[in-house]
Amino acid sequence: MTDSPASAEARRAAAPTCQGKPIHAIIPAGGAGTRLWPLSRRERPKFLLDLTGAGRTLLQGTVARLEPVAATTTIVTGAAHVEAVAAQLPGVPAESILAEPSPRDSMAAIGLAAAVIARRHTPDAVVGSFAADQVIADEGAFVGAVRQAAALAEDGWVVTIGIEATHPSTAFGYIHAGGPTSVPGAPEGRVVLGFTEKPDAATAAEYLATGEYRWNAGMFVVRAGVLLDHLAAQRPELAVGVEEIAAAWDTPEREPVLERVWPGLERIAIDHAIAEPVAAAGGVATVPAAMGWDDVGGFDALSAIVPVEAEGSAEGVAVLDGAGQGGPAADVEAVGSSGAIVATTTGRRIVLLGVPGLIVVDTPDALLVTMPERAQDVKGAVDRLKQDGRTGLL
Amino acid sequence: MTDSPASAEARRAAAPTCQGKPIHAIIPAGGAGTRLWPLSRRERPKFLLDLTGAGRTLLQGTVARLEPVAATTTIVTGAAHVEAVAAQLPGVPAESILAEPSPRDSMAAIGLAAAVIARRHTPDAVVGSFAADQVIADEGAFVGAVRQAAALAEDGWVVTIGIEATHPSTAFGYIHAGGPTSVPGAPEGRVVLGFTEKPDAATAAEYLATGEYRWNAGMFVVRAGVLLDHLAAQRPELAVGVEEIAAAWDTPEREPVLERVWPGLERIAIDHAIAEPVAAAGGVATVPAAMGWDDVGGFDALSAIVPVEAEGSAEGVAVLDGAGQGGPAADVEAVGSSGAIVATTTGRRIVLLGVPGLIVVDTPDALLVTMPERAQDVKGAVDRLKQDGRTGLL
Repeated sequence: MTDSPASAEARRAAAPTCQGKPIHAIIPAGGAGTRLWPLSRRERPKFLLDLTGAGRTLLQGTVARLEPVAATTTIVTGAAHVEAVAAQLPGVPAESILAEPSPRDSMAAIGLAAAVIARRHTPDAVVGSFAADQVIADEGAFVGAVRQAAALAEDGWVVTIGIEATHPSTAFGYIHAGGPTSVPGAPEGRVVLGFTEKPDAATAAEYLATGEYRWNAGMFVVRAGVLLDHLAAQRPELAVGVEEIAAAWDTPEREPVLERVWPGLERIAIDHAIAEPVAAAGGVATVPAAMGWDDVGGFDALSAIVPVEAEGSAEGVAVLDGAGQGGPAADVEAVGSSGAIVATTTGRRIVLLGVPGLIVVDTPDALLVTMPERAQDVKGAVDRLKQDGRTGLL
Repeated sequence: MTDSPASAEARRAAAPTCQGKPIHAIIPAGGAGTRLWPLSRRERPKFLLDLTGAGRTLLQGTVARLEPVAATTTIVTGAAHVEAVAAQLPGVPAESILAEPSPRDSMAAIGLAAAVIARRHTPDAVVGSFAADQVIADEGAFVGAVRQAAALAEDGWVVTIGIEATHPSTAFGYIHAGGPTSVPGAPEGRVVLGFTEKPDAATAAEYLATGEYRWNAGMFVVRAGVLLDHLAAQRPELAVGVEEIAAAWDTPEREPVLERVWPGLERIAIDHAIAEPVAAAGGVATVPAAMGWDDVGGFDALSAIVPVEAEGSAEGVAVLDGAGQGGPAADVEAVGSSGAIVATTTGRRIVLLGVPGLIVVDTPDALLVTMPERAQDVKGAVDRLKQDGRTGLL
């Protein structure tokens, strides 16, 4: 897009293909997931949990579904979680787990990973950033969308994957799609007209009615060099800091440079730093995808994700065992409680009598009981624990 | 009643007065209270629990409220619970705790205690039997009713205390009261026309409309000798067995006689063995009493018994701490959950969000979540544990 077709052609030929895997995956693994307390804790954030009952954590699922398209996988996570991340991902080399000394929001994390990848491979490498704590039911659809996004990225676009909006959610930002991009290999590519913050219900309904809006899941695919050029143009100080750290990363200077530069990096999301201004300049494309996506933003989401017991003593109830924390199997009896959700890590006998739709989250030191329509208020309960200095429960 | 006024007068003079305390209390302490699972267990039956948050167990409360009227207190309990009963009642001498080798229903238990008391004191002693697992809010009203009942018992009546029926319950049997007994010291005494089993709702409503019916709480007051005479008349074999055991009780022969005779005793409730046939013959009186009585027949009862938090993080919720089992204090936060009931022995953080009226019972190895209208179904959950051989949870 920013280049002539001829130079794009040359670049495509030069880019590493790695057995046809078109991207270098970046997985920012941050965020506590306070709305999933008491399952998620500071020491055991959401992405380290199995919230689907699939026998793998959200992070493991993210890596696994990228496997068909990712030549390499780079995780960016807090220093406190490096060990747990490495333990969950034995196939990812230690050098591909980048430790942030402190949270500096998504632009610094993704920018650093892109800059490191650009140096380890080539600035022409296409990177794709995918949050560590989402679930996707149709992995084939996801991979297909990533492949189209990679084709658009090769052509110079900043590409975001636009999740089919299945209902007028007020919990997500939206992508406004315009006309086709007409790039080979990306038949569904559309130019992005703009991004919107989380809308109110009426606005969300209007968005859906037009058919032009997609949910923004924060999935960005772009050539590393293009990303870093945009960063230099939009946030020059941040770009300088990120490049300085990346230059030192694979040298003995990493720690001192990190210590000096990282704390001063601007805290800004990639959406604000790059996606929005570049979209305004016509440089962002989107690939639509209907793939059963969920960001597991609260316990109310689990009933759509965790399989409901079809028979046995907990028939009609979604039972989440262990949540990837090991421990004994669930021991649930439910009568007259269809649609209830039980997440337990204790193995205690849990009896539900006449509580349809109830949410019960059972851990050794904390028990949460709520209803789906109040599940988002869990964050408030966690905030009160913080205020009360109950750090052992956070 | 069975005697002339003159002989009744003579008997009253001869009866032990013990500082004006008119009765020898008998407290049958049996029954598991399966509808209070998982708080109540085989090893920790209902009467050993503090279900009122008063800092004393139901058994301790029963003994304490009888203190103003009981010259002596005799507990009849299962052999497995003698140690726990003694530990909870340091003021009761060991010889006053009678151990049943196996459950033989209330007639054998109360008959044995009455026979032992008759031998230790005199057959003219008035005994009063009161279940170990009930709560009474107005202890003054209770004591007043017992005093009237004792006066009637002195006069030869079998006396039952008739609990004011505050609603058309289908969970209790009813006492049908007739005309006055006209006995000095018992101004409210009425002749009992009969007892009824638990009625259906329509019948219960009819009962209440007449004003002639009271709940039968199984509180019987009667001279020991009168009780044993009735038993001999109604159930001669059972009477012989009870007398044989009682004769051996305070001798070295207790154990061999118990072992030989007890297992063969008829299993029958005192209501069927004595109260019903004697009432039919005109020998039962009742004293009405409005005293805030409850038999704590399930968790739905707790909201009327456990004080509701007036402020703090669990405002509007009835929180039962420890249930007399020691352990840490409750740590409950409740939002939008007024009328909920939390009984916990774990000290875990318990967060309720938007679950008004919910019942949560939290113990180390079992968790129950239900609603008041389903609380009686807890028995079924316990039955299923039995069927499944989950004895560790019973």
